[in-house]
Amino acid sequence: MLTLWTFDWVPPPPRGHVRDIRLRWALAEADLPHAVATVPFADRGHGHLAQQPFGQVPFLTDGALTIFESGACLLHLAEKSEALMPRDPQGRAETRQWLIAGLNSIEMISVPWWFIGLSQPAANPLEGWLHSRLTHLEAVLARRDWLAAGRFTVADLLMADILRVPALRAADRILDRPAFASAYRDQLAHFAAADAARAEG
Amino acid sequence: MLTLWTFDWVPPPPRGHVRDIRLRWALAEADLPHAVATVPFADRGHGHLAQQPFGQVPFLTDGALTIFESGACLLHLAEKSEALMPRDPQGRAETRQWLIAGLNSIEMISVPWWFIGLSQPAANPLEGWLHSRLTHLEAVLARRDWLAAGRFTVADLLMADILRVPALRAADRILDRPAFASAYRDQLAHFAAADAARAEG
Repeated sequence: MLTLWTFDWVPPPPRGHVRDIRLRWALAEADLPHAVATVPFADRGHGHLAQQPFGQVPFLTDGALTIFESGACLLHLAEKSEALMPRDPQGRAETRQWLIAGLNSIEMISVPWWFIGLSQPAANPLEGWLHSRLTHLEAVLARRDWLAAGRFTVADLLMADILRVPALRAADRILDRPAFASAYRDQLAHFAAADAARAEG
Repeated sequence: MLTLWTFDWVPPPPRGHVRDIRLRWALAEADLPHAVATVPFADRGHGHLAQQPFGQVPFLTDGALTIFESGACLLHLAEKSEALMPRDPQGRAETRQWLIAGLNSIEMISVPWWFIGLSQPAANPLEGWLHSRLTHLEAVLARRDWLAAGRFTVADLLMADILRVPALRAADRILDRPAFASAYRDQLAHFAAADAARAEG
């Protein structure tokens, strides 16, 4: 039984961007049955750290196995469904490579760029580096529809979510997929329900 | 036939830290026969970008397959050798998870922190975030010798290399492995030979 773990509640600003959305999206693409469970946002205690040693979400439980890191969870789901990754060795290698490129060639710059931009938007020391990486990525996306294996894979899913932060338009069409819309709605509904429960409590 | 691709030459400061060292180290741990080939550092032309779309190194060729991203190359090598990753599903999942944690929970902060520190060491806006992540990681490393599967894996190799930058001592013992020493020597010798060839030329 697959269970997706997220926070019980988060303040409004990150809603729609909590990384559980990557797993919700992948689960919807692959139509994999799953439950959603929560850890307290306010108290990242021992139980949480035992599952996710950096006190973050999401993580995934699959029977006795717990997996953290959204990228690792996506690869785990991709092993379960050809909707997320082809089965041939070359297709798998390409998918894995572009998933890791999202995490380590783009997000490694874009997330610190976003974080620094919150406090010093006018002179962000990561601006040039991010621009260079996005320019290289745009050159790839200008030549083909999908990053890996000539088809939609979990690498496109991850890259499209990553590119919501620096808002690279070249990836917007991947966000048009119905499974992203449903994942986004589900995350907002999850946190809205938490607000409602608090208001009643 | 495996070929590790790196630059023909780099200036002295990054020597010993060019990411081909991760692949040299893994190849040495697994005792995998391979060749080393180069792309020009000075001219990141079309041929290079066709293999590595961000104009970086390393990348790996394995027959007709080209793989870029050091993390993806390490996973590819790990599929070839039990010296780098156990064969059982849980051990593989743990290894993959901690490899991705290195790339996306630590290096995503430590590399931009290093980059920004070059120009503004006194007030690095990523200092607190990096400190928090390293504190969480130290708590893990204080409780066990290896990140995944109760044994040395490619996840330890990658994390130890990542932690050379913020210099987390908890990982130093992994750098004591003979295969790291030989990888380090090989990279320095590679670039020293390039200097010698230039001096003669």
